[in-house]
Amino acid sequence: MKMNALILGGDGYLGWPTAMHLSMKGHQVTVVDNYMRRNACTELDVGMLYPLPTLIERAKIWHEKTGLEIKVVIGDLTEPELMRSLFNGTLEYQWAIDQSYSGCPDTVFHYAEQPSAPYSLLNYKYANKTLSNNLLVTNNLMFALKDYSPETHVVHIGTMGEYGTPDIDIEEGWLDIEHKGRRDKFLFPRQASSLYHTTKIMDTDLMWFCVRMWGLRITDLMQGPVYGFETEESKVDDRLKTLFNYDEIFGTVINRFVVQAVSGYPLTVYGKGGQTRGYLNIKDTLQCVEKAAQCPAKAGELRIFNQIMETFSVNELAELTRKTGRNLGYEVEIQQLENPRKEAEEHYYNPTYQGLQEIGVEPHYLTEEVMASMFDCVSRYKDNIRHDVIFKGIKWG
Amino acid sequence: MKMNALILGGDGYLGWPTAMHLSMKGHQVTVVDNYMRRNACTELDVGMLYPLPTLIERAKIWHEKTGLEIKVVIGDLTEPELMRSLFNGTLEYQWAIDQSYSGCPDTVFHYAEQPSAPYSLLNYKYANKTLSNNLLVTNNLMFALKDYSPETHVVHIGTMGEYGTPDIDIEEGWLDIEHKGRRDKFLFPRQASSLYHTTKIMDTDLMWFCVRMWGLRITDLMQGPVYGFETEESKVDDRLKTLFNYDEIFGTVINRFVVQAVSGYPLTVYGKGGQTRGYLNIKDTLQCVEKAAQCPAKAGELRIFNQIMETFSVNELAELTRKTGRNLGYEVEIQQLENPRKEAEEHYYNPTYQGLQEIGVEPHYLTEEVMASMFDCVSRYKDNIRHDVIFKGIKWG
Repeated sequence: MKMNALILGGDGYLGWPTAMHLSMKGHQVTVVDNYMRRNACTELDVGMLYPLPTLIERAKIWHEKTGLEIKVVIGDLTEPELMRSLFNGTLEYQWAIDQSYSGCPDTVFHYAEQPSAPYSLLNYKYANKTLSNNLLVTNNLMFALKDYSPETHVVHIGTMGEYGTPDIDIEEGWLDIEHKGRRDKFLFPRQASSLYHTTKIMDTDLMWFCVRMWGLRITDLMQGPVYGFETEESKVDDRLKTLFNYDEIFGTVINRFVVQAVSGYPLTVYGKGGQTRGYLNIKDTLQCVEKAAQCPAKAGELRIFNQIMETFSVNELAELTRKTGRNLGYEVEIQQLENPRKEAEEHYYNPTYQGLQEIGVEPHYLTEEVMASMFDCVSRYKDNIRHDVIFKGIKWG
Repeated sequence: MKMNALILGGDGYLGWPTAMHLSMKGHQVTVVDNYMRRNACTELDVGMLYPLPTLIERAKIWHEKTGLEIKVVIGDLTEPELMRSLFNGTLEYQWAIDQSYSGCPDTVFHYAEQPSAPYSLLNYKYANKTLSNNLLVTNNLMFALKDYSPETHVVHIGTMGEYGTPDIDIEEGWLDIEHKGRRDKFLFPRQASSLYHTTKIMDTDLMWFCVRMWGLRITDLMQGPVYGFETEESKVDDRLKTLFNYDEIFGTVINRFVVQAVSGYPLTVYGKGGQTRGYLNIKDTLQCVEKAAQCPAKAGELRIFNQIMETFSVNELAELTRKTGRNLGYEVEIQQLENPRKEAEEHYYNPTYQGLQEIGVEPHYLTEEVMASMFDCVSRYKDNIRHDVIFKGIKWG
């Protein structure tokens, strides 16, 4: 069945590849973004690996090359009237072949959040921006659904970081608790180690409330750090690749390590390097959100999956990067730095993550071959890499 | 030991009585408020039982009658610079005998939140206002403490409503969980039945993060609905009584029932009336926050108490009001209305609440005598009571 898909945060690292992926499959796609991420990169002087066309330019390139239309709305979703206009048809598209309203979306992919832990803790201004952006966008979405379209299914990106590193096995979102001879089922306990991650816990609190009150349908995907930047659809034109950050604020660890290895900068391991997390390839993010959308949550259901495919410690990732690099002729050093985060550097970590594979996701794993292909692509932009962007020694927390 | 006390939300139902109470005990007291609550009452046309002097007028009356000074700052604490000025001495008092900075507070009483569940769900605008006010004030406080005064102890008012009505016994804030042969301690599971209550869950998430990261000291008091309006200090001058709402938005159930009984309006019981909650006398709120402040949380501790003294179902409260009223010569009817809230009307409810009594709080209980004294005071303002304020049939949720 063809979806009428609305992608909130469609300019982002995951939003844009999702837009192309769904468009290629023949779904109707509208993207909304206010360029918050790009603007923050400019403000903080943390340049990307290669230049990024605007969202409208990318939608035009996509149309030229494929004949497919991705409608574009540029605006701030913390403004409730903009959010509501997407559901009641009073919006204007900043770019579309067909300017007529494409109808109330049946599926919303909600990526419109400030996604960086360090950013959220740089100072009180960025903290407030993270808090108010993330919570107001989600709340505006909830009220728009309640008021105009409670049947619409939301696919939201949460984070594995909501759970923190508890001393018990991590289940997929929920936990049956027995206490003093009585039982009840609750959200799995959450305690994050950044303000950003804490806003995602708050999102969960908020969505769980709205699901119970108004019978909304929501799938919340507790995602681990994503790596990679090429997808099937980005092969259409090189200018369609998603954004790539390699700095301390917006870069994620695997992407950063590859850039560091390619540019001869020692891999920056924070503290002991025993921090273990679940990871996934960007191609699997696309599979996960698509499968979740095809098999939606029921009315009144907050369905939670843990969106990771395998776990690594930071030391294991550094070793894999060194090994891959050496086999490609790069001299890769590993440097242990004082940890700018307050987090356990050695801890128990045993998350469950079968749910998405049960609905049909087929994992890509981070092999040396996969990492070598990342080296290959990054090396084409080697001259763009700025060492002062890799490491400024930003203090946060 | 004398405190240097800062009261955020010092114009409110609990904030002002706390200010007088601490001032009378010889503590240095500064109050901050932006009149959000009063302004909302005006905007929604839900008048109070009697007129309320401004915060500055009340501080002046207090000074005239007692010689004591309560310094007054009028402003919006969602503005981070105002919050920070209270800790770094760059503030201006709107009223004070001695305009010099009273120094960095050693204890903060944080009441500066939009406190009404119905208000938070009237529409998306009030929802956003509740969310952004409550979260930004708390976040501004956290960052001001981190940056200027991590030793300061915060006494925050949470709500028993954070827990909802789980099918297991409610502990004081925390729960030891055993799962698959391993154990860890977590925040007691929370799931509230209004957006307002959900913002208090988010406050808990946020404060718990900041306590772990920065070693702050916080006592969070999960309070039940409060009744009463006269305190020892309000006897000083009749104009010093705290605000009294009796409407559907800001009025709490016991206060509302007394007004309804006095004015011949049938008691409004929502649904089956089996909703059971913990209650406390406003005099006990004063005891609780004072005892909590005298015996502060340790650095890096989020200490949680359940701040209730006894539990009642709505039907039990209605019966007590009818009985008290009849003995005073009032004809009191009980009317069952369709419940405007989505909540369990019959449920298990077994909260623990020993902690505050263990640190010295001596409960007042809601006897017929106590309720009769509320009848007595309310009856003096009988002519002010507007039936259209008691019940407008506001739909929310």
